[in-house]
Amino acid sequence: MKEKRKSAGLPPGSVVFTGSQKVEKISIHYLQYDADFLDEKNYDNHAKITFHQSAPERIDWYDIRGLHDTQLIEAIGKTFNVHTLVLEDIVDVDQRPKFEEYEKGIFIIIRALAFDKVNEVITTEQVGIYFRKGLVLTFQETESDLFELARQRVQRGRGRIRTRGADYLVYALLDVIVDNYFLVLEEVDDVIESLESELLQHTDNSIRERMHHLKIALLAARKSIAPLREAISRFAKSENELIEDSSTVFIRDLYDHTIQIMDLVESHRDTLNGLQDLHLSEISFRMNQVMQVLTIITTIFVPLSFLAGMYGMNFDNMPELHYKYGYFILVSFMFLLAGGLLFWFRTKKWL
Amino acid sequence: MKEKRKSAGLPPGSVVFTGSQKVEKISIHYLQYDADFLDEKNYDNHAKITFHQSAPERIDWYDIRGLHDTQLIEAIGKTFNVHTLVLEDIVDVDQRPKFEEYEKGIFIIIRALAFDKVNEVITTEQVGIYFRKGLVLTFQETESDLFELARQRVQRGRGRIRTRGADYLVYALLDVIVDNYFLVLEEVDDVIESLESELLQHTDNSIRERMHHLKIALLAARKSIAPLREAISRFAKSENELIEDSSTVFIRDLYDHTIQIMDLVESHRDTLNGLQDLHLSEISFRMNQVMQVLTIITTIFVPLSFLAGMYGMNFDNMPELHYKYGYFILVSFMFLLAGGLLFWFRTKKWL
Amino acid sequence: MKEKRKSAGLPPGSVVFTGSQKVEKISIHYLQYDADFLDEKNYDNHAKITFHQSAPERIDWYDIRGLHDTQLIEAIGKTFNVHTLVLEDIVDVDQRPKFEEYEKGIFIIIRALAFDKVNEVITTEQVGIYFRKGLVLTFQETESDLFELARQRVQRGRGRIRTRGADYLVYALLDVIVDNYFLVLEEVDDVIESLESELLQHTDNSIRERMHHLKIALLAARKSIAPLREAISRFAKSENELIEDSSTVFIRDLYDHTIQIMDLVESHRDTLNGLQDLHLSEISFRMNQVMQVLTIITTIFVPLSFLAGMYGMNFDNMPELHYKYGYFILVSFMFLLAGGLLFWFRTKKWL
Amino acid sequence: MKEKRKSAGLPPGSVVFTGSQKVEKISIHYLQYDADFLDEKNYDNHAKITFHQSAPERIDWYDIRGLHDTQLIEAIGKTFNVHTLVLEDIVDVDQRPKFEEYEKGIFIIIRALAFDKVNEVITTEQVGIYFRKGLVLTFQETESDLFELARQRVQRGRGRIRTRGADYLVYALLDVIVDNYFLVLEEVDDVIESLESELLQHTDNSIRERMHHLKIALLAARKSIAPLREAISRFAKSENELIEDSSTVFIRDLYDHTIQIMDLVESHRDTLNGLQDLHLSEISFRMNQVMQVLTIITTIFVPLSFLAGMYGMNFDNMPELHYKYGYFILVSFMFLLAGGLLFWFRTKKWL
Amino acid sequence: MKEKRKSAGLPPGSVVFTGSQKVEKISIHYLQYDADFLDEKNYDNHAKITFHQSAPERIDWYDIRGLHDTQLIEAIGKTFNVHTLVLEDIVDVDQRPKFEEYEKGIFIIIRALAFDKVNEVITTEQVGIYFRKGLVLTFQETESDLFELARQRVQRGRGRIRTRGADYLVYALLDVIVDNYFLVLEEVDDVIESLESELLQHTDNSIRERMHHLKIALLAARKSIAPLREAISRFAKSENELIEDSSTVFIRDLYDHTIQIMDLVESHRDTLNGLQDLHLSEISFRMNQVMQVLTIITTIFVPLSFLAGMYGMNFDNMPELHYKYGYFILVSFMFLLAGGLLFWFRTKKWL
Repeated sequence: MKEKRKSAGLPPGSVVFTGSQKVEKISIHYLQYDADFLDEKNYDNHAKITFHQSAPERIDWYDIRGLHDTQLIEAIGKTFNVHTLVLEDIVDVDQRPKFEEYEKGIFIIIRALAFDKVNEVITTEQVGIYFRKGLVLTFQETESDLFELARQRVQRGRGRIRTRGADYLVYALLDVIVDNYFLVLEEVDDVIESLESELLQHTDNSIRERMHHLKIALLAARKSIAPLREAISRFAKSENELIEDSSTVFIRDLYDHTIQIMDLVESHRDTLNGLQDLHLSEISFRMNQVMQVLTIITTIFVPLSFLAGMYGMNFDNMPELHYKYGYFILVSFMFLLAGGLLFWFRTKKWL
Repeated sequence: MKEKRKSAGLPPGSVVFTGSQKVEKISIHYLQYDADFLDEKNYDNHAKITFHQSAPERIDWYDIRGLHDTQLIEAIGKTFNVHTLVLEDIVDVDQRPKFEEYEKGIFIIIRALAFDKVNEVITTEQVGIYFRKGLVLTFQETESDLFELARQRVQRGRGRIRTRGADYLVYALLDVIVDNYFLVLEEVDDVIESLESELLQHTDNSIRERMHHLKIALLAARKSIAPLREAISRFAKSENELIEDSSTVFIRDLYDHTIQIMDLVESHRDTLNGLQDLHLSEISFRMNQVMQVLTIITTIFVPLSFLAGMYGMNFDNMPELHYKYGYFILVSFMFLLAGGLLFWFRTKKWL
Repeated sequence: MKEKRKSAGLPPGSVVFTGSQKVEKISIHYLQYDADFLDEKNYDNHAKITFHQSAPERIDWYDIRGLHDTQLIEAIGKTFNVHTLVLEDIVDVDQRPKFEEYEKGIFIIIRALAFDKVNEVITTEQVGIYFRKGLVLTFQETESDLFELARQRVQRGRGRIRTRGADYLVYALLDVIVDNYFLVLEEVDDVIESLESELLQHTDNSIRERMHHLKIALLAARKSIAPLREAISRFAKSENELIEDSSTVFIRDLYDHTIQIMDLVESHRDTLNGLQDLHLSEISFRMNQVMQVLTIITTIFVPLSFLAGMYGMNFDNMPELHYKYGYFILVSFMFLLAGGLLFWFRTKKWL
Repeated sequence: MKEKRKSAGLPPGSVVFTGSQKVEKISIHYLQYDADFLDEKNYDNHAKITFHQSAPERIDWYDIRGLHDTQLIEAIGKTFNVHTLVLEDIVDVDQRPKFEEYEKGIFIIIRALAFDKVNEVITTEQVGIYFRKGLVLTFQETESDLFELARQRVQRGRGRIRTRGADYLVYALLDVIVDNYFLVLEEVDDVIESLESELLQHTDNSIRERMHHLKIALLAARKSIAPLREAISRFAKSENELIEDSSTVFIRDLYDHTIQIMDLVESHRDTLNGLQDLHLSEISFRMNQVMQVLTIITTIFVPLSFLAGMYGMNFDNMPELHYKYGYFILVSFMFLLAGGLLFWFRTKKWL
Repeated sequence: MKEKRKSAGLPPGSVVFTGSQKVEKISIHYLQYDADFLDEKNYDNHAKITFHQSAPERIDWYDIRGLHDTQLIEAIGKTFNVHTLVLEDIVDVDQRPKFEEYEKGIFIIIRALAFDKVNEVITTEQVGIYFRKGLVLTFQETESDLFELARQRVQRGRGRIRTRGADYLVYALLDVIVDNYFLVLEEVDDVIESLESELLQHTDNSIRERMHHLKIALLAARKSIAPLREAISRFAKSENELIEDSSTVFIRDLYDHTIQIMDLVESHRDTLNGLQDLHLSEISFRMNQVMQVLTIITTIFVPLSFLAGMYGMNFDNMPELHYKYGYFILVSFMFLLAGGLLFWFRTKKWL
């Protein structure tokens, strides 16, 4: 969140990039298609692009990766007549997922998740999707090709994707990101399982911290997913003419997936809470055991040591010291005493 | 969940089995009946089946056990004109229970529960039910005959079942699975009771883990039951023409059962939480007792040992050592001191 | 719950008694009345009864105690034309309270509570009430006369009860049971108060268990009361012609009582949770005190004992041993040391 | 609650006083006014009163203090034609706050709070308010003049109160009681602050109990305030002709106050919970410190004592004893050992 | 809250300042503008101001800082015809944020937050905003220029602000305050992070208190933000003619920000709770470690000391003492014993 509020206090609609620059060069991928036609271009130097929209029966998809050049964003916005509040949100990279209908188009924010296995944290990246009839604009923070699977489907012409409108393409893009959530949560699940098995073997100092960080990570994931559920629900229920009736059943299916993911997140959180409770009672239990050992040793030897101390005293008149078998009697008594105490501990179930 | 996302990134409607194969051979059980007629067949080799639907006044019920052969599922889907999203859900075996109306039929997912007494976990199996006028398709992951009791009712012609439509058969199938939840929860209840009685006798290391796992099991059960309640509520309220008015009272009764089951799950969870609290305070209490024993022993003998050590010193000039009754006076004093401390402990309620 | 699922898997409407038989002989009490007329009969042998309904302007009330004879229940059901789902619920004695309107009558389930002072548990008994114009059937599990106070009111002709319809009688019966909840919760309150005062005096082993069981008891009570609230709300809002407008104000009053009772249960639960927290911190506090005593004793005497041990060594060359006042100097030093430590403890507020 | 259920099982509308008698003599204060006219009377002996209602453009306000004389209540009820359920609620002094519209008037229950500084508990008193056009009846349990401030406003003719109807007077009465909640919660806040500062200084035994009781007190306050909020919301939204439109803005203001009070109660509860957590971790922390002192002392002196014990043995052949500087070497070694241990503790941050 | 209830019991609409006076002199800043015109004045002595409203197509904005002079507030209220309940709320500085529509204008309360880095508390200041066509009145408690950024935008004529109505100015003012919440929460985030890193290094006494106070601070922030969300939602949905349609999209954007801020507050609270749990388990863990050291030392040396004590006894007949190598055998045995115990500890993972 650290970089966020560069824009604090600026007038609304100010296009200010609030993230930290994650890519050196902005790259733009362009795809134009209809059922029979496919054109694809990759621009590393965006100065050369002429943004345009082709005939409305075709679909133009610009995939912009890298958001730090706000002039470019503003230029795109101008070309395609996008509301300035949308442009502001695209480059303000700590937005909650949302679904917003504007007069001329629909704007969706979604957050892509990734699991960093080394630090066991979940990283998120904001993805902005703007579409209208025949045009889809996607804005990513990084170079990673989040939409690869969807793009391949377009390229291969598999499935319905080539014959449907922009709304179906947007659905497919969202679907790819939401499907990825399952993979991230599976990795979280693996970590939770490894934590559980470690927990039952030893109380390593680091387990606590790992559980704490995983919990924070799940909180972050939940913060991305909960509003997404709502946004996709509004997508499914929207009566906007940009969304064809035949797409609704698919968006509803996507909505089911987000519910399923929320369930998973909640159940991971519950499991993690259970582990923390288990961990705490594990520590308590071990402390108890340590205390028992201490108590047993002390309780046996302190009285014996006292007896030994007694007969180490230097009083002139200590008759026992002069008994012929005094020493042996005492040692025998000590054995009896220790044995009696051990027996008592056994009845108390401390041994 | 591990196998789940084989299908991640595939286009919607892709029929990909996401479970682990649980049966070697797919078996299909076929039942055709009306009030006066009954035909029954068991196929071990599904290649021989010609799927078909008889006259609409009869009911055809295909019970497919084993879902790994996606070609078979797709063939069935094609024969009976089932939406591809339904087929995808049938073989994607980690779905939440749901109720969905399609143009040509109704699709229900429910999860059958079973309690594994050895490991004290609840296992779940996905059951998909698709029906339309005169046709019921059920899809199970395993060979176990979940619907035996309902099938017997059809075979014996008992009750209303033979004279009613497909919706009533589906109700009966759901009822059998939901009734089984009660049995599973009873077994959970037995384990909770045994845990409680063990807890009050000793703090065995394993109790903590068992409670933890039972809690996870109840979470899993809840995850299956909570959305089911909602699904059955929608079943009861649906105005689909496939559901006859006379069936509604029964489905509402089924809905009451799911509420009752949720109550049971919640109360089991509460009881389990109570047990965990009890367990923790039990450990604290025992630690307290151990500490008291340690403290009493130490507090009595450490001063006595000190006194003994004093008179074990080798100073040339220690007059007490040469008193005739010095030793006896000291021993008497030690007894008094110990007695006084014991009395003090008693006033503090430590004994 | 143990006996519950005898009926699991049976077709709906199967009349199966799921409780444990609590009475040896079924007894039936019959009351027929209108404003000017009163007839009362007690049957110990139900074979002799001819169930019938008199002229509709009179009210017939059959109070059946003992539910294990399902044939009798079915016979009554047949005589008065009661839906089989109602009959099933009457003898399935683990139902949630509910309010259900059938075509020909209204069916209410309520659970009567009783507090067992010896074991400090709350026992519940299912009561089924079915009524239509001029007819009230009540079904209890045990012989105890739950409705005594309402019956007396009918017998004495006090209040409105003789001039009103079946709906008012049902209201009066529910009112008697709900009023009894207050008495039960008062007894729970007494136990909580006694627990609190005991808690502050000593940490007896049994307090934890008693608190645990009381908590479970309150959970059970809540499970009976929460759905009752809902059921009575539906009773109050029902527009069924069996319920006269003039009764609604009373049923709403009853509804207020159930809310008040839920409040009481919740506040008892909160108090109990508060007690458990208090108990835990009490244990921690006492442990702390025990540890302080241990630490003070150890910290004072261990260094002193060390010094004594030093001068008990047998080195040939230990000049201090031969000083004339060596012993006395050491003893004085020991007093000073002990005093200093005690002073230090006082500044640390350990004394 | 102890006296509550005297009325258990009685027919509805039975006027039974369920409180403990708090005043010896019932006193009634009577005020009659319109914009230009004011008449005031104080009756200690209610036998002398003739209850009546003057011309409808004037307002008659009877303030009855002391509720144990149910005959009086019934007489008033009869005179002014009050529904028996209202009369029952007036003398049943453990009601939840509520707002009820009857055919002829409106009945409101509110609970006045007071903070008992000595015992740090919140006491509540039920106040019943019944009004219709030109008539206001208020019923208090005790003699304390809760409505003094409102009465003074009437007497002085300040503000709108003299020119408005009965609904505005009722609003003013409720406002006085709700305003008093702020004072009570301020006193609770003072106690919480004093608890916090005490907590950080010492872990006195009594703090736990005080926190526990304060928590119970806040629970009680919440039980009085939460339903009040709802009741006043219904008051504000009511379309009863007894409530003038011009009063609504004030009642809505009152509603805002109840929300604000609920916020305060919740935030006090949260603060108190925070304090309890702080207290628990304080105890744990101190225990930790005590344990460290114990461990340091033990760890240093036990090995030293062992060494001293070694050279206190009486073996014939112990060459070290006869070294000239044996004693001094040993003492030096002991200093080194103790110093080394202290250094080790410092690296472990125990010192 | 301490000063709050000066006004308790006064008639509604009484203008009583309930805060503590925070500024010595009231200052008023006046701004009059339309698209082409700008007039600005600063009054330190408010006696000289003639409050007035210019032509309705211009906007007059009076920014009053300092609220203790209730006569001034009443005069302003009279001049601009403001409802007395609004005036009461303006000077009653512990209000919840709210949005209220009056006949002649709209009144909004919002609380400005500030983070005090030294004490790590969040301070709040009430801001009242009243507007109608062409007039905006803002009321602040302190001299700090909260609205500086918005004022600059007006002065520079940047953005839409000069061409829009009073509603847009109010939106801009609210936006400035809400944007500031992000900065405050960032500072809270910094403190949480520093707490986390400190926590993992040492368990300083003060960390607990800091966490406790930060939690209270977040509670306070939440108390200001939660009702604000609701107020702005009502602002966005209001159909008041004072709010132009073109402003709604901006107010909805503001609403999104408040939701985002609530999310942040909740996630900070969750993180803080996680830290507290971590802290507690940290303390437990360290206690466990301390206990292990204590137990190891005690368990090794207590038996050895006992043996040394044994052979320090002065019995006449102790044959071992006279063995030639008795001493050396004993010392060797002691080494073996200590080594064995260390090995046992290692198998128990205590070392």
